[in-house]
Amino acid sequence: MIKYPYKKNIQSSLPSHAENGQKDVNFGKRGMTFEAQIEKVNKYYLASNFAVIHKKPTPIQIVKVDYPKRTQATITQAYFKTPSTTDFNGVYKGVYIDFEAKETTNKGSFPLVNLHAHQVRHIIAVTKQKGVAFLLVKFSAFDEVYLLPATILNKFWQEYEKGMRKSIKRAEFIVSGLLVPNNTYPSVDYLKIIDQLLENENLKLKDGC
Amino acid sequence: MIKYPYKKNIQSSLPSHAENGQKDVNFGKRGMTFEAQIEKVNKYYLASNFAVIHKKPTPIQIVKVDYPKRTQATITQAYFKTPSTTDFNGVYKGVYIDFEAKETTNKGSFPLVNLHAHQVRHIIAVTKQKGVAFLLVKFSAFDEVYLLPATILNKFWQEYEKGMRKSIKRAEFIVSGLLVPNNTYPSVDYLKIIDQLLENENLKLKDGC
Repeated sequence: MIKYPYKKNIQSSLPSHAENGQKDVNFGKRGMTFEAQIEKVNKYYLASNFAVIHKKPTPIQIVKVDYPKRTQATITQAYFKTPSTTDFNGVYKGVYIDFEAKETTNKGSFPLVNLHAHQVRHIIAVTKQKGVAFLLVKFSAFDEVYLLPATILNKFWQEYEKGMRKSIKRAEFIVSGLLVPNNTYPSVDYLKIIDQLLENENLKLKDGC
Repeated sequence: MIKYPYKKNIQSSLPSHAENGQKDVNFGKRGMTFEAQIEKVNKYYLASNFAVIHKKPTPIQIVKVDYPKRTQATITQAYFKTPSTTDFNGVYKGVYIDFEAKETTNKGSFPLVNLHAHQVRHIIAVTKQKGVAFLLVKFSAFDEVYLLPATILNKFWQEYEKGMRKSIKRAEFIVSGLLVPNNTYPSVDYLKIIDQLLENENLKLKDGC
């Protein structure tokens, strides 16, 4: 619970620099963390009444709190906890949306060590409740963002847990994932991909009639 | 952002005693905070594959982090932030669920000062995206839990903002809210009420055919 992994070549979306009080504000796309990009598109979705999707706060284990004044609590000892779910969730057109977002500077692959088993379990559980859950991965060297649906992520994860793979290749994202429009305003417009997924789902339902 | 309100007669579901390191574990219903009760029923829902609903972590503004060891980050200065959304959200039968949970020892009414304007705005925004959003209030003196749907909460909130009311009377919860089964296992079985709401919704849809 106490260990907080800073993985080589991986910039976790949690915690952001901003949370360390080292604000690195950059309103252009370059220099923005992937997390900041997603928070920006979520703000746009909210302001446009497209969707209500928020980042969950970083889970923290509070150990000590001081009360220098009656109304002001200062946390003086706390630790980062391993998140038990994903970073982002919300609602879009009545559909529950849930995803984890990761960025890698690796060119060839996304190392699966950057996901937690309970995060993948959570993604699968959401799918069983008919929510739309997925992984968003940004390959920053190419400025490419891929959406990997839950079922495909689960297949790769099973192989990872059996020791058959350590990562998901960029080539596999190209084949099995969906490229998220990123050169538009807003950038990382992932709801466009959700629209495609929901449309396919509706077509399937219609075929079943 | 820094002030953390400890209201008289109100036990906010955030933060729990557990987070202050003062664990007050009690596996009976008595002595359990309302938040702990809800977390328990959510665990039951998850284990039974009924629903995936989690409490969001308490939002915290981190100011200072020490790294005594490479792998261990210790937060040495942080503050509670005002939550911008609600405490709980998730998915049930494909429906997005979102709610705020509050407990009061007041016998006559629930003071609206315990909700934030942006929480109510969030609840309304969720409803517009066809999510099911509501307020759960426990009157601990009576061991009663009421579910107040978003539309009704919004009506009361409008009156509060216009200075026409300061609280919601218990009598109003009895008339306009829905009593949550609480003497069952699991206690605070709020999905039972959601089932009723969804059924009414379906009947309405059928009438429209």
